[in-house]
Amino acid sequence: MAVRAGILGATGAVGQRLIQLLEPHPAFEIAALTASEASAGKDYRQAAKWRVDSPIPDDVADMTVTATDPDEVPDDVDLIFSSLPSSVGAEVEPGFCEDGYVVSSNSSNGRMDDDIPLVIPEVNADHLDLIEVQRDERGWDGAMVKNPNCSTITFVPTLAALAEYGLEKVHVATLQAVSGAGYDGVSSMEIIDNAIPYIGSEEDKLETESRKLLGEFDGAELSHNSVDVSASCNRIPTIDGHLENVWVETADEVTPEAAMAAMEDYDSLDLRSSPDPLIHVFDQPDRPQPRMDRTLGDGMAIAAGGLQQSPFGLQYNCLAHNTIRGAAGASVLNGELLLENGYL
Amino acid sequence: MAVRAGILGATGAVGQRLIQLLEPHPAFEIAALTASEASAGKDYRQAAKWRVDSPIPDDVADMTVTATDPDEVPDDVDLIFSSLPSSVGAEVEPGFCEDGYVVSSNSSNGRMDDDIPLVIPEVNADHLDLIEVQRDERGWDGAMVKNPNCSTITFVPTLAALAEYGLEKVHVATLQAVSGAGYDGVSSMEIIDNAIPYIGSEEDKLETESRKLLGEFDGAELSHNSVDVSASCNRIPTIDGHLENVWVETADEVTPEAAMAAMEDYDSLDLRSSPDPLIHVFDQPDRPQPRMDRTLGDGMAIAAGGLQQSPFGLQYNCLAHNTIRGAAGASVLNGELLLENGYL
Amino acid sequence: MAVRAGILGATGAVGQRLIQLLEPHPAFEIAALTASEASAGKDYRQAAKWRVDSPIPDDVADMTVTATDPDEVPDDVDLIFSSLPSSVGAEVEPGFCEDGYVVSSNSSNGRMDDDIPLVIPEVNADHLDLIEVQRDERGWDGAMVKNPNCSTITFVPTLAALAEYGLEKVHVATLQAVSGAGYDGVSSMEIIDNAIPYIGSEEDKLETESRKLLGEFDGAELSHNSVDVSASCNRIPTIDGHLENVWVETADEVTPEAAMAAMEDYDSLDLRSSPDPLIHVFDQPDRPQPRMDRTLGDGMAIAAGGLQQSPFGLQYNCLAHNTIRGAAGASVLNGELLLENGYL
Amino acid sequence: MAVRAGILGATGAVGQRLIQLLEPHPAFEIAALTASEASAGKDYRQAAKWRVDSPIPDDVADMTVTATDPDEVPDDVDLIFSSLPSSVGAEVEPGFCEDGYVVSSNSSNGRMDDDIPLVIPEVNADHLDLIEVQRDERGWDGAMVKNPNCSTITFVPTLAALAEYGLEKVHVATLQAVSGAGYDGVSSMEIIDNAIPYIGSEEDKLETESRKLLGEFDGAELSHNSVDVSASCNRIPTIDGHLENVWVETADEVTPEAAMAAMEDYDSLDLRSSPDPLIHVFDQPDRPQPRMDRTLGDGMAIAAGGLQQSPFGLQYNCLAHNTIRGAAGASVLNGELLLENGYL
Repeated sequence: MAVRAGILGATGAVGQRLIQLLEPHPAFEIAALTASEASAGKDYRQAAKWRVDSPIPDDVADMTVTATDPDEVPDDVDLIFSSLPSSVGAEVEPGFCEDGYVVSSNSSNGRMDDDIPLVIPEVNADHLDLIEVQRDERGWDGAMVKNPNCSTITFVPTLAALAEYGLEKVHVATLQAVSGAGYDGVSSMEIIDNAIPYIGSEEDKLETESRKLLGEFDGAELSHNSVDVSASCNRIPTIDGHLENVWVETADEVTPEAAMAAMEDYDSLDLRSSPDPLIHVFDQPDRPQPRMDRTLGDGMAIAAGGLQQSPFGLQYNCLAHNTIRGAAGASVLNGELLLENGYL
Repeated sequence: MAVRAGILGATGAVGQRLIQLLEPHPAFEIAALTASEASAGKDYRQAAKWRVDSPIPDDVADMTVTATDPDEVPDDVDLIFSSLPSSVGAEVEPGFCEDGYVVSSNSSNGRMDDDIPLVIPEVNADHLDLIEVQRDERGWDGAMVKNPNCSTITFVPTLAALAEYGLEKVHVATLQAVSGAGYDGVSSMEIIDNAIPYIGSEEDKLETESRKLLGEFDGAELSHNSVDVSASCNRIPTIDGHLENVWVETADEVTPEAAMAAMEDYDSLDLRSSPDPLIHVFDQPDRPQPRMDRTLGDGMAIAAGGLQQSPFGLQYNCLAHNTIRGAAGASVLNGELLLENGYL
Repeated sequence: MAVRAGILGATGAVGQRLIQLLEPHPAFEIAALTASEASAGKDYRQAAKWRVDSPIPDDVADMTVTATDPDEVPDDVDLIFSSLPSSVGAEVEPGFCEDGYVVSSNSSNGRMDDDIPLVIPEVNADHLDLIEVQRDERGWDGAMVKNPNCSTITFVPTLAALAEYGLEKVHVATLQAVSGAGYDGVSSMEIIDNAIPYIGSEEDKLETESRKLLGEFDGAELSHNSVDVSASCNRIPTIDGHLENVWVETADEVTPEAAMAAMEDYDSLDLRSSPDPLIHVFDQPDRPQPRMDRTLGDGMAIAAGGLQQSPFGLQYNCLAHNTIRGAAGASVLNGELLLENGYL
Repeated sequence: MAVRAGILGATGAVGQRLIQLLEPHPAFEIAALTASEASAGKDYRQAAKWRVDSPIPDDVADMTVTATDPDEVPDDVDLIFSSLPSSVGAEVEPGFCEDGYVVSSNSSNGRMDDDIPLVIPEVNADHLDLIEVQRDERGWDGAMVKNPNCSTITFVPTLAALAEYGLEKVHVATLQAVSGAGYDGVSSMEIIDNAIPYIGSEEDKLETESRKLLGEFDGAELSHNSVDVSASCNRIPTIDGHLENVWVETADEVTPEAAMAAMEDYDSLDLRSSPDPLIHVFDQPDRPQPRMDRTLGDGMAIAAGGLQQSPFGLQYNCLAHNTIRGAAGASVLNGELLLENGYL
């Protein structure tokens, strides 16, 4: 029987993607939709300005949107997917966890908290058990797991594939799509025939979330990885798909050929939304490209290419679909991991 | 009296920019236009598919285009501006130098030759005297000076401003405009809603030309700078203006504030096309941006911004207009330097 | 058993779409690929610069490309899909028909010939029997059917739906995607932050092809429809999907509501590639939009919207995917019609 | 001595263009800047997010922004340029006129009022004297003149040039730039790789404002022109420059050649911001294009091209810079006309 799931922030860009991914999902059933007070009480069809490239599922369209409040969500809902502005998330998510809901959240609040697992299942599924620590410390019946930022998700799997060589220094420059900022986040006048070399607080997310994701969990405490990461983030005129240029310096030397093999062989998982292979490696130097490669693995694959020796170590490019693998799909995948590990 | 100047490759994208810049120039007079055999004998108006955003100057429009051959260029022409495909440049440019013409060339052939000065006047004007060595070795009556690649020109002035701190390692990621590939170089289907993480042989140009530009000339020999540079080049959907993310590691520590001051105070030159200041430094973290800032200093300024400490040293962004400062304007500026230094 | 099919011009943009559509098609089997002399003898993988957003089918990748010549195509091939430059098509297509091949062609040569059926199956399937006249006149064992130009296909089905009201005058302005010009047809420098109000000989195609498509075939002769059409064609920076603004003046008055109903109810066909409904009509005034709606019906639907009264009659917008419904899919659909009607 | 001028809505996109145009203007001096309550009391530098491609003039940057209220504007200001949202304009503009200010407004409120002159100086300067009627009826010491909508301004001068042939029917399809919607009016996710065939209430403006502009003023009453206009409006991914496809049916036949001559010879005016020629006519069928031609006449020219016979009369394309000729420049030009005609 499908797990009954609610979506917090269901009218937003990531909320719409969540509906698109969950509606055909055999393990989850959409049972609640919340949004801001202004939308509460409306049919979803009226409340949402639907912008995804497949029609609103009919049964979802007729559901009534409620306020984002645990009391408004039916008790038989077990799992909550959350994609709220971080300030709203910080305020309301803990209440859901207290009330016994298991929350898989894409919101950035709390990601770096010591007792909140920040998880990409193929990279650090074992961090999920930080939930036990969390429940001890917070007295929650429910639980909270977070997925990282879209730009972090894009390059961390490739680093994980190289971890055996001893990660020391990483430089990463991002070319990020406008959808990462939400539907109205980047005006057309800002970005047509232009690029913006700054995305507020984004660089910090790549630099700190990656160390947490690549850290070790000993069952009691999580130690972050010691790799130093420096990021430079740019917005460019693409709709979907974050492209990243990466330089990695490792303790042990790694040739481009060995790195390609390590990426190609990097473990995928036996979860429904985890693609096989996880990392699609291109021979051609001019790939991956956002428009050509963002839908690999139904938008859940990581693409890599251009692997070469730099004067300082290894150099390559990677790409992921920022609103699927980097946001809604990441939360759904964490939901699958929660289910597999008995948290639902 | 104005120096009589010829333009090799006058119908191409950079050739058109050269005409736009030279036509109102008080020191130079357009006296010859060459192009491929197919265009020879035609009026420039018919030969060129004019695409610059100001009309063809009337007197230029009526000039007859000749083949790219020293015998076709009038003897009273002293200075040659060349913007040819590198394979053509390699074949025909030396013949002009042998015949006594002084050539300021944007073509990439020969840039790394030991006896060819590769010059950004504000950075390494003293390298120009390599012409003496060149004449000795090659027996030329004329001379050849090259300007670097557009993506090299964008970041080298900022490195030069920091040179006193001891340049050690540089990582640079470029977001390059489509005009850098020539008018038909990037098809619209390749680049709309897309980015391409590869530009053939571009990374090598940034890595090697920068060391030559920042090198020392002792009057006899040129030693390259020892800085290690690693570049990652991307094409994005912008018309003009290359944006670059730069990380610099220096021997002596440099704070962002000191780096801003060094860039702002970096010497400009008293040449007509050299802007003052050379480097325009922005306080706002989200600048420079291609569409907003590429025309600073009539397209001849370098813009920098986003200076900050990285885990590894200094980090910042820079921008230049790739077909003005990065190509046609660079050649014109070298022409001005040749004149000032008595080579014309 | 599947009909064995050859593709003329298999390496081009439409040729690649043909492969994408035919590979999974149950009724057709790709048995021959031709291209220019330069490609003949190569594996398709080497000959084509594959640019479609799904990988090259493995068995197609390994096929050997031949020259575009009937002698090079195996005799057991029955059906030829052709997408050649019109000058090449004019030269080589008749030879295939003489040799007994049935040709479904997207090339513009011959479209307006009296004895060549120009067919959109849902609009004028009965014109196909013009093949009998054609065989009589030309002595062909094979046959030739053409599909119209991509911009013609977009609006003619909506006109056909309104034909019962008596079409008199049509004004149509097109906003056409860059893929309509082929992969290298529109350079990025021409179209980023721009629009081009002219596409060579395109207006004439909309004006004349529409009259032929809407004409009557009495079994012996085809009379063109008397509607007067005036077109104004623009290229805009979209990848796929031609959007058109249409004004129609009819003999009998038609309200927007009646027009919507006529379009929604317009007959689809029972062919595999014909979508149901053929015309998807939007209530929202701001639809259809290229990026949102071009893949309706797997790219084979026509979308319409914004129906309203103008001072002169009816006014609306329509959209179709120009390389699927407007080119490769149109030829495949004609192939299905040929099969259904016993010509294969 | 320069007329002291105030700008209502000075922080908006058109307000910024007004500052850019007025700052170097010899006849006007910027003496007051107003904006919403949130900005009142701040320096302009802080209040405005400056986005125009030239720096904020220093003296303007240091001016204090006031609320949009006649009591907040110094008494020695004579002329008010207004670019407010129409709902705000409707509320506050009349108060300024009552208080004796002469208002040149770009806001759409009141444009169709019987006693408000709607003026493009080169087209209907004589309508300005409707101010006498206005003052009689409203008891204003000041006065109000409006300029039309940006998409109306683009095509009306070309119609005016053809008026002698007897305008009967006009179809116009617009391809409008995103800046026409204001800085945040069109999100990048709406428009990259897309077009939107609808702009709220825009079609009505083209249809009604054009009839008023082309009407006759007998000194007492204004009669609208009887031409029927039907518009279809599209938003496309261009930054600046509205391109329009126009079909005109006239009482007397007009050849394309005669129409070109009529447009080229159409009277310019002896006002500072009026370009000569007013209408720049291209021979090439693929011009005008937004990025290439929007800055003709410093953004104040109308460009036309592609003139040809259609089955129904004349057909052509036209273009104007929508935020200069179509908005800020239009208001400044009306200011110059007010000055020339003694209203200041």
